[in-house]
Amino acid sequence: MIILGIDPGYATIGYGVISKDGGNLSAVDYGVIQTPKEESIPVRLAMLDDALTAIIQKFKPDAVSVEELFFNTNITTGIKVAQARGVILLCAIKKCGRLYEYTPLQIKQALTGNGRAEKHQIQFMVKALLKLDKIPKPDDVADALAAAVCHAHFGEYAHRVLN
Amino acid sequence: MIILGIDPGYATIGYGVISKDGGNLSAVDYGVIQTPKEESIPVRLAMLDDALTAIIQKFKPDAVSVEELFFNTNITTGIKVAQARGVILLCAIKKCGRLYEYTPLQIKQALTGNGRAEKHQIQFMVKALLKLDKIPKPDDVADALAAAVCHAHFGEYAHRVLN
Repeated sequence: MIILGIDPGYATIGYGVISKDGGNLSAVDYGVIQTPKEESIPVRLAMLDDALTAIIQKFKPDAVSVEELFFNTNITTGIKVAQARGVILLCAIKKCGRLYEYTPLQIKQALTGNGRAEKHQIQFMVKALLKLDKIPKPDDVADALAAAVCHAHFGEYAHRVLN
Repeated sequence: MIILGIDPGYATIGYGVISKDGGNLSAVDYGVIQTPKEESIPVRLAMLDDALTAIIQKFKPDAVSVEELFFNTNITTGIKVAQARGVILLCAIKKCGRLYEYTPLQIKQALTGNGRAEKHQIQFMVKALLKLDKIPKPDDVADALAAAVCHAHFGEYAHRVLN
């Protein structure tokens, strides 16, 4: 089973593709989609849509896992991230069809057993569970892989966003 | 020149198609796209994308005009509206290519000459400028038509969101 995890954003969007073979997890590919700040937001959304479509077409994931959005203090950034997340959800439901959303608490719990785990603990577990040499950088990539690992753990029992 | 105005939302999305022939404006079509609350947000975003694509294909607008989003007090609603607005921007830039964004102040100014005009004044001017028998309902429709009229006024001087 191939799972694509995505960390939503509009400037830097982390993605992580993992394979689940029985209880064995491994990283297939990971990185970031970046959109140039010189471009307008609608053009950047179109670039994000194109890049994410290409990733879905290349890796043909059985499921896409996206973290739910909770607002930070910066409302202007929040609007932009939410607009980009709308594009990500649309792309995932249309191009893959099997979309799952998890809260930050669920992701922390799935990786560490503790819903209040710190970021470095999550990153440590991403590295350990996927048997990586080091913690993937930037943080957006580790967050995307964490969303994918969360679905690998919870997936069979998860409520799917039906298409 | 055909202009499509959109009032962003995720449950009820107003749209208004107007024609500009010299200084003469007229309403071509208007109404709402509605997405059922029983469905998940990603599915509703896909429905919105499909409906908006059909409207763009039917009326082939020369420009799409969308109001910029400013946050109200309800953050949860705000995230959902912003996600839907991301889908609207993506659809407009990909399917039409000529997308313009206006602030509420610009729209009020274009319709009434007063950036602090009240909602009922905007609605009155929408009715008057488009020679309608009555104010279109619900408010989402009047807001969408107002965005279209704003572009009809400002359009030649406006900064286009380049594709």
